[in-house]
This record gives sequence, structure tokens and C-alpha cells, in this order.
Amino acid sequence: MKFKLEHQDTKSKARAGTVTTDHGDIQTPIFMPVGTAGSVKAVHQRELTYDVKAQIILGNTYHLYLRPGLDVLEKAGGLHKFNGWNKPILTDSGGYQVFSLANNRKLTEEGAVFKSHIDGSKHLFSPERVMDIQRTIGADIIMAFDECPPYPCDYGYARKSMELTHRWLKRCIDRFDSTEGKYGYSQTLFPIVQGSVYPELRKQSAEFIASCEREGNAIGGLSVGEPVEEMYAMTDMVTDILPADKPRYLMGVGTPANILEGIALGVDMFDCVMPTRNARNGMLFTSEGIINIRNEKWKDDFSPIDPHINSYVSSFYSKAYLRHLVIAKEILAAQVASIHNLSFYLWLVGQAREHIIAGDFATWKNQMVEKVSRRL
Amino acid sequence: MKFKLEHQDTKSKARAGTVTTDHGDIQTPIFMPVGTAGSVKAVHQRELTYDVKAQIILGNTYHLYLRPGLDVLEKAGGLHKFNGWNKPILTDSGGYQVFSLANNRKLTEEGAVFKSHIDGSKHLFSPERVMDIQRTIGADIIMAFDECPPYPCDYGYARKSMELTHRWLKRCIDRFDSTEGKYGYSQTLFPIVQGSVYPELRKQSAEFIASCEREGNAIGGLSVGEPVEEMYAMTDMVTDILPADKPRYLMGVGTPANILEGIALGVDMFDCVMPTRNARNGMLFTSEGIINIRNEKWKDDFSPIDPHINSYVSSFYSKAYLRHLVIAKEILAAQVASIHNLSFYLWLVGQAREHIIAGDFATWKNQMVEKVSRRL
Repeated sequence: MKFKLEHQDTKSKARAGTVTTDHGDIQTPIFMPVGTAGSVKAVHQRELTYDVKAQIILGNTYHLYLRPGLDVLEKAGGLHKFNGWNKPILTDSGGYQVFSLANNRKLTEEGAVFKSHIDGSKHLFSPERVMDIQRTIGADIIMAFDECPPYPCDYGYARKSMELTHRWLKRCIDRFDSTEGKYGYSQTLFPIVQGSVYPELRKQSAEFIASCEREGNAIGGLSVGEPVEEMYAMTDMVTDILPADKPRYLMGVGTPANILEGIALGVDMFDCVMPTRNARNGMLFTSEGIINIRNEKWKDDFSPIDPHINSYVSSFYSKAYLRHLVIAKEILAAQVASIHNLSFYLWLVGQAREHIIAGDFATWKNQMVEKVSRRL
Repeated sequence: MKFKLEHQDTKSKARAGTVTTDHGDIQTPIFMPVGTAGSVKAVHQRELTYDVKAQIILGNTYHLYLRPGLDVLEKAGGLHKFNGWNKPILTDSGGYQVFSLANNRKLTEEGAVFKSHIDGSKHLFSPERVMDIQRTIGADIIMAFDECPPYPCDYGYARKSMELTHRWLKRCIDRFDSTEGKYGYSQTLFPIVQGSVYPELRKQSAEFIASCEREGNAIGGLSVGEPVEEMYAMTDMVTDILPADKPRYLMGVGTPANILEGIALGVDMFDCVMPTRNARNGMLFTSEGIINIRNEKWKDDFSPIDPHINSYVSSFYSKAYLRHLVIAKEILAAQVASIHNLSFYLWLVGQAREHIIAGDFATWKNQMVEKVSRRL
């Protein structure tokens, strides 16, 4: 993996660059749609490419490990071959899901023992095991196995958790560097900064992560319930420490406004289930603001969902029709809203990139944060 | 509406023709995907056009009347404008749903009083009201309001029900012929032959329906649980009576084999929820036979779903990936399986048409019935 830093905004820390992987280039800043179990929910791979214009998608190690399982993925020749998505893929480490979904989980120095939420079977995720699993899934970018502490979290726990994450990182790096990809293309490992909302811990963690000199770095443990000011403050501090010549990935973030502020703070990569999950509940993100399409006011509004977004669904389907689909519980509702929301997110980061290159990012960002946050 | 009978098979009653409507031509024999509430479940309108290659879709009067409701449909300028499907649409009369879905239904000479299955509100469907509703929905082909008797059904009930359907038909025709379409294009009314599985009643009904001299005719009350032999016998008898120069529509039929046999008996149009409903349960119809994609045997079968079917999903997605989507309860499973099954149904009737034109339909049909019925 390579990263080329191409533009640096003068009035903020925003940057534009290009990540190069064996599955193609990613122009940053970028948003990565989440494809939990190898499918971005309700969206065809063809739509991801041509409508959403996604450049990289996420897979969840926990889900993929349980279903379809490593035997199937390895026989298929990796996730790209299995699901037909031929552009870059990033997989998380599974740690977050072990703590949010699995049953009877137990954390030790060795790793996390848990029971599958599907069939109750018992499993161990250790740093070594998680590297091996992600080698088999075959993502282009794989994540270190970390503990993501909850919010709020007392200082003592946050410090111990961070130290464990650092020890696990060393084991991840050892395993990763002593193994090879299984399918003939390169994989790269991103370490994760932790430290909850404690500046001193965040600084310590960012310095440790930077010292590992990997090809890209991630910021974890944010957007877990803390006030946005704390999220921005932690991000600001961490991006000052993480090397400028490597991509920075803020995990699990967030709303359109969060993403714009994150870009302004020097983040290059984002992922979040929000555009797809909220779509399934009838919430639309548009270039004019947020729409709850269930509201009566859209009942006979036959205007397109969002004519400014260059995807088939956003201009083809009307608000009134989409509202009808949601109210009538039609599957197509989830399809239309998901494609639209993802197209909007990709449009938004694409616009951010253009404004960074044009040199007017900071002004544009402030106007846009207000616009995309209002409720229509 | 016009119908041009273009080819007549010499070894069966199969025919090929073209139905012309103000929304375009339909080449028969044809299968019509069911779009209950204005959406063919899990399928985008674009996919219906370019992948499935549907030429006409169905809407359900009962569902559309309740949601989004006539006010919205009329403001939109009719269903075509509302859902963006610009090719022909056929609507059923709503009678079938009143008896299968609605609550507290009561049948009188006037019509059917029922309570909505959605909010319990009370409604009356009479022949006149149902004509007005279908005028407002704006389908190209609208269906007479009939009673579809259950199976089994004693002779006395079947006869009375048929007579009521005939009296209602006269009222439908009077209302239809004294009103006009609301959106500037033509609509046509198809009457429906009833008579359960009683040859004498079917003959009587078909003669009455033929005497009404409408532009097309339908055969209802079949595929409701009777043995297929009875369905074929009734269809055979009725198509001998219905005029040859008008399209014949066998309502709610059926499996791929049922459709091939129906074509051989002189039917031109079919509709059924089977390809989409069964798709959502993991049953695939393919050119090689029927697949239950949940079976373990498909777990690591990375071959395409059906390379003989010329739709994106059938060749892009593998059986193993689709199985994974079904097992993991991903929405994409319903999308892929629905598009595939519909594409297969449209491919099948397209093949039938080609073989009718080529003159070898009967031989091909017998081979194909066996092939499409076997379980893989």
C-alpha cells in the first residue's frame, strides 16, 4: 500500500491524497460503506460501483469468521472473489463485535474468548488468530486486534485497556510480519490509537502507534457516546502526532457533520453504518438537510429525493414514492434509501476533496456542516 | 388496446402475438411480474427493464387503494408516474385480496364490504367503485370485479358465485364504458371466466364472457388448490370457447411447468407471486431445475446462479455467495433471488415464443417441462 499526500489545506488540517492498493486507488478523504457480512445491506455490488461510486468497502471479521466461515472464504480465493467486489476492502479486527454482540465473552491477556451470537459455539480471538483470520479473508487493509473501552470509562480502566491494546499490537505486528497474503496481493496492517477521552492517554497511545511505523494508522474508541466536542478534541490531538505522510482512519464516524469536521482535523478515511442503518429506518441525508421520509409532509411531494446527487435512485424516485415504500414496508424502500444515503456520503467526501484542492475547504465546510445538519 | 395474433403452433394450441397499448407493446406469451403495492418486491424499476426484461407488470387494486391511496395516485398522475414504470401495467380488481386479506368482509349483491387489514377502516368495493378506482390508478388493462370461489366449492355455490360474477360484469362494463381514462391514454377492461372446476359452469361462463366482446379475456378461479389436471382441463375447455383474436390471461398461474402447459393450451398472459415469493425463501428456478439454495450442498459451489439466463445477477453472483446471503438473512439475498427468478420466468416465455415461431414448440415444451420441474 502506498499513500501520496497531494494537497494540504492552509486554513485547516484537511488533506487530499491517494491510497494505492493492489485492488486499485482510493482518493482521500474517503467514506467506506460497511459490508458487514460481505454485503453492503440492500445494495448490489454493481450499484456500489456505478451509483454510490464507492472506492473501498468494509467487512466485519467477526461476522465473516462465523458466516460463511474461513473454509468457504479460503476456497473462494478470499472475500473479493467470494462477493465479486474487485476494489479495495478493509476488515476490522472483530474486537468491537466480540464486545457488542457475542455472548459469555471473557477478556484475558491471551485474547477474548466468546460464544457465537448465532449458535453459541465457543471461540478465541487472540492477536495472532485475528491476523490469521484477516489473512484468510484477504482484505487489502487489516486492523490490529484492540480493546475498545466503553464510554464513560474511568481513567484506570482506560489506561489498562490502552496498555493491553499496545501489547496486543506488538503481537499483531509480529504475526502479520511473519506471514504472507494467501492470494497473491499485498495486505497492510493499521494499528489503532486508544485512550478513551483522556488527553494524556491519547497522546501516549498516538506516540506509541506512530512509533510502530506502519503504512497507515487508525483512531479507535471514539463515537461511542462521548460528546462530539470530546471526539473532536481527541481527534485533533491525535492527528497532530500521527505522521502526515500516512493515511489516518477515524473508525466508526459518523454523521455528515462529524465527517466534515474530521476531515478538517486531518482525517483521511471514515466508515459508519449510519447511512445504511438509518436508511432502513427512513432517514435520508440530502444535500439540503436531513429528511424523515415517514413524515406526512412528503406524502404528495413528487420531487426527486435529491437531484443534486448523481445516482440513479436519487433523481429517479420521488420523495412521495419512497415514503409510500417505507410506510408499506416494501423491501425496495431499504434499497432506495441505502443507495441514496451512501451516494450522498460519497458525494460529500468527493466535494470535500474538490474544495481542499481548490483551496476553499474551510469556508465551504462551515456552510456545509450547517446545511447537512438541519432537519427538513 | 390491440392484439395481433402472429403465429399459431400446429401441434398444440400455443400462439405468439403482440398486444399494443399506449404504454408500448407486449410480445406474447408473456409473464407479468407482480408489483403488489406499486413495487415488484426487492427489484428496482431499472432492473425490471434491463435485467428481468419485463414488458408489463401487475398492481393490486386492494393494496394501492389502501396505500398510498387514490388521492396520492391521482395527484401523481397515475401509477406509472408515481412509481416510474413507463411500460404497460395491469391491475387486478381487488376482489381476491378482499377475500384473502381483509377483515369482517361481507358479500352482498351490491358488492363487498370489508375492513382494511392495515387500520381496520371500513370500505365498499362494488363493480362501479372498482372501475372508478382502476380508472384512477390508471392501469392499461383493468380487471372486472369478480368473486373467486375457494377450492373445493360445491356446485351450488360455484353456480351462484358465477352468476353473481356475471351480473357484476355487466355493471363493470356499464360503468367502464360510460367513463374515460384520467390521464390521456387508453384503458381496456378484461372480463373473467369463473365456474370453479365444473365443466358445465366453465363452458357457460366462457360463452358469456366471449359474448361481451371485450378486447381481452381472463380465466380466474384456478390455481387455488385444485389438482393441476383439473386446472389444465378447465383451461383447455375455456380457451376453445374464448375468441382466438383476443389475448387470454390465466390469472395467478404458476410454476414454470404450469406456464408452459398453459401456453400449450392457448393462454397468452400469466402472472404469479411465485418467482418473487419463493425467491425470498431461497427457492431458485433455473434453466437446469429447481434449487433450494439453503442446502449445504451449495455452500462452496462458486459457479454462477444460472449462466444461461441473461441477467446481471444470474451470472455475476455465485450459488455459494447467494446461499451465504440467505443464511445470514441479508436483504441482498431477496434482491438477487427475485431478479434471477423473474429473469428466468421472462426467459422461459421468451423461449416459448421463439419455439412457437420456429414451429417446434410442442417438442421443446415437453423436454422443458421435465427439465424445469426437477429438483437439483
